[in-house]
Amino acid sequence: MYKTILDYVRRNQLFDRGDRVIVALSGGADSVCLLVVLNEIKQEFDLALKAVHVHHGLRGEEADRDSNYAGELSEKLGVPFSCAHVDAAGYAKEHGMSVEEAGRHLRYKIFEEERVLFGGTKIAVAHHGDDQAETILYNLFRGTGLKGLGGMRPLRDRIVRPLLCVGREEILAYLSENGISYCEDSTNNGTEYARNRIRKVILPQIKEQLNARAGENIIHAGLMAAKADAYLEKQADSLLANYGELKKDKDGTVYQWGIGTEILLNEDDIIRGYVIRQMIKGVNQSMKDITMIHVESAAALLFGPAGRQIDLPGGLVAVRTRKQMWIKKKNVEDPVDNHLEVSLPNVDFSVFSYKKGMEIPKNGYTKWFDYDKIKCALSVRYRETGDYMTLAGGGRKTLKSYLIDSKVPKEERGKIPLVTEGSHVLWVIGYRISEYYKITDDTHTVIQMQLDGGKVNG
Amino acid sequence: MYKTILDYVRRNQLFDRGDRVIVALSGGADSVCLLVVLNEIKQEFDLALKAVHVHHGLRGEEADRDSNYAGELSEKLGVPFSCAHVDAAGYAKEHGMSVEEAGRHLRYKIFEEERVLFGGTKIAVAHHGDDQAETILYNLFRGTGLKGLGGMRPLRDRIVRPLLCVGREEILAYLSENGISYCEDSTNNGTEYARNRIRKVILPQIKEQLNARAGENIIHAGLMAAKADAYLEKQADSLLANYGELKKDKDGTVYQWGIGTEILLNEDDIIRGYVIRQMIKGVNQSMKDITMIHVESAAALLFGPAGRQIDLPGGLVAVRTRKQMWIKKKNVEDPVDNHLEVSLPNVDFSVFSYKKGMEIPKNGYTKWFDYDKIKCALSVRYRETGDYMTLAGGGRKTLKSYLIDSKVPKEERGKIPLVTEGSHVLWVIGYRISEYYKITDDTHTVIQMQLDGGKVNG
Repeated sequence: MYKTILDYVRRNQLFDRGDRVIVALSGGADSVCLLVVLNEIKQEFDLALKAVHVHHGLRGEEADRDSNYAGELSEKLGVPFSCAHVDAAGYAKEHGMSVEEAGRHLRYKIFEEERVLFGGTKIAVAHHGDDQAETILYNLFRGTGLKGLGGMRPLRDRIVRPLLCVGREEILAYLSENGISYCEDSTNNGTEYARNRIRKVILPQIKEQLNARAGENIIHAGLMAAKADAYLEKQADSLLANYGELKKDKDGTVYQWGIGTEILLNEDDIIRGYVIRQMIKGVNQSMKDITMIHVESAAALLFGPAGRQIDLPGGLVAVRTRKQMWIKKKNVEDPVDNHLEVSLPNVDFSVFSYKKGMEIPKNGYTKWFDYDKIKCALSVRYRETGDYMTLAGGGRKTLKSYLIDSKVPKEERGKIPLVTEGSHVLWVIGYRISEYYKITDDTHTVIQMQLDGGKVNG
Repeated sequence: MYKTILDYVRRNQLFDRGDRVIVALSGGADSVCLLVVLNEIKQEFDLALKAVHVHHGLRGEEADRDSNYAGELSEKLGVPFSCAHVDAAGYAKEHGMSVEEAGRHLRYKIFEEERVLFGGTKIAVAHHGDDQAETILYNLFRGTGLKGLGGMRPLRDRIVRPLLCVGREEILAYLSENGISYCEDSTNNGTEYARNRIRKVILPQIKEQLNARAGENIIHAGLMAAKADAYLEKQADSLLANYGELKKDKDGTVYQWGIGTEILLNEDDIIRGYVIRQMIKGVNQSMKDITMIHVESAAALLFGPAGRQIDLPGGLVAVRTRKQMWIKKKNVEDPVDNHLEVSLPNVDFSVFSYKKGMEIPKNGYTKWFDYDKIKCALSVRYRETGDYMTLAGGGRKTLKSYLIDSKVPKEERGKIPLVTEGSHVLWVIGYRISEYYKITDDTHTVIQMQLDGGKVNG
């Protein structure tokens, strides 16, 4: 196994010579194996290791036992060690998240702090092949593109995962062969319901009943998806390098990135999506809260008339001008760009799970819609011929006749901003939302749309 | 729903104006819906339809009832109809396949014959969204790349699937709303075990316990994989168009296709695989029996010395010469290409499931290995420094000392062909196989390697 891991580390260039590595050490089998193996290969890469244990303030004596064992093992291996205490339960309460999620946040925060203190270059964590198969299925079931199908990457943002190439059974066999002890992970029994179901029920069932190698097969398909994802990103980057127009402020911070609509329209659908993602990442410095629907809605602007825009999380906006597709920071006045022709309001989208009894906002600025009903990209735009709404009971009404019935003067009708899915109007901003997209008892997921305050007569 | 399907047909350009379409009509809900919807949209695309029902000679009266209903419905809709009788059970016996597999073979054979008779341009089948999610999971668990993750394509090789955009429930609701009756598919209860498990147990469990939208999410991820796959194929084709070297015989049949090794080595791993696939497809006219391991083994030749080759199914061979990577038909003497420097034997690989009690061939030309043990690409080559074998008990022995112990004269040692995985020798051809890869009671899958008769002293 040692050789498998060494091959994997080399092939994926997980370490540079002289790396200083924080090793996440819970004291469980996986992290014990990680520390032992890294300690063995440290000479080859001239690594400096430091083991860090996070005590979550949960599980009483058992957690103390784990901490003590982690410290003892590190000492025996001659690896510097530190233990940090956190209050996962309190943090969970404070931030309205599950204890597991809080634990994860806090751990990575500690590892990052320890890395800086240690002058560290990498953080090694003990995810293995079984975790990878579980992650890929979890992403697939919850909704993902190639990125999520690719699972955890061996190296990303300083986090390295040298054990992804081996399974849990191999790890246990290695520890037992080498007479290395470890603490039982009773925490693993408490992780979130969905992952637990996959790990304990669904994946074993698939292996037993459908294909004994399903775990490896899932990992292999994931690897292909990850490779395709990396390649597509590279292609998008190269298009942007050749044709992109980048705008930076005095400090060199990117506030706007654009590319010719002609160029995007000549590319495949999938590349358009990747170009938009890369522009968002470049302007936002992060893909936090950016979902598929944002990317697809931005890409859909290409097929509409100039002047349309949609809002994106993180204070960004996607704008399609006559010749360019832009991702820009909102509220940045751009003296150079005067094609914008934009007077549409800013609408923020966010997506979350619906639980029965949630109170639906009753104001003109925040609306909830049934996310599951939306099949295509959304636009924020003015009216066009063919626009329609759905009435209670399921009948359709043209937007025109709705506006006439609502006594909107003819000259005002073209100035009312809409949120639409194709010709189907979800929201006549300032007026009403379509029956079709309303929240019902069957709603699983909500898409909330929020207007930048007071811009329309809503 | 009608509009959803029409959109889908337009977006994917499933039909050209004037297409003549064979509609596969079992009489069950899905195919009844297909025929009704196609009959509705036929004007828009100026389609000529013909319904074809295949009677499998199974299920006695029930099958007769289905045939009759299919005929009546077609008549009512004014669509020409024909019914073909086949003997699925007999065909299954004759060809050593399951009755379901036999049924599928025979159906597509009939549809193709009917298409030719009808002067047809397309064959429409009734696979829907639920079938798609099931297919994607089935492929994922059994092992696949992006192609399999992409599931069934809306249009491929004249087969169109207009219902992929709707689910089974929508189909049933549509039929009931429009008062259209259909036959219960009792056949669906008899389809193969694995697909049935996914459809009836695993997918419903995932939807219920993990994510109600899992079906749609799987389909969406599949769509991204299909788009990536199509894009990667296009990139590979464009590389081959620019740099490939194609050799055709007098009739214009391609017998050899190659590209510079330098060019391939400059590309991403994933593109190398696609280029090799496209060359195989071009020379072989089919990807039948070509697995991932063949493509990866061929790609691995790039990283070895010139002169190595491996055999591929369909009578092909991948050859790496000093400057080129070739896919060629075996036994085609190529007067132009004299870089081949090849004297290695031809080894055919095939992969199948192992069942306890299967008789392992005991001759020098056919060997079985435990496929699950193979993690990297295989090569057929001569020995190199560092080659080793695994002995009974798990110890290693260098190939050199094995050959010395076997009293192979020094000057002969370099002439013995090997099958290797990296430096690990699976088979010293003519001598022995490695203990490590031997079939055991735990073996799930066998890779059989077969030598072209009598070329070595085995």
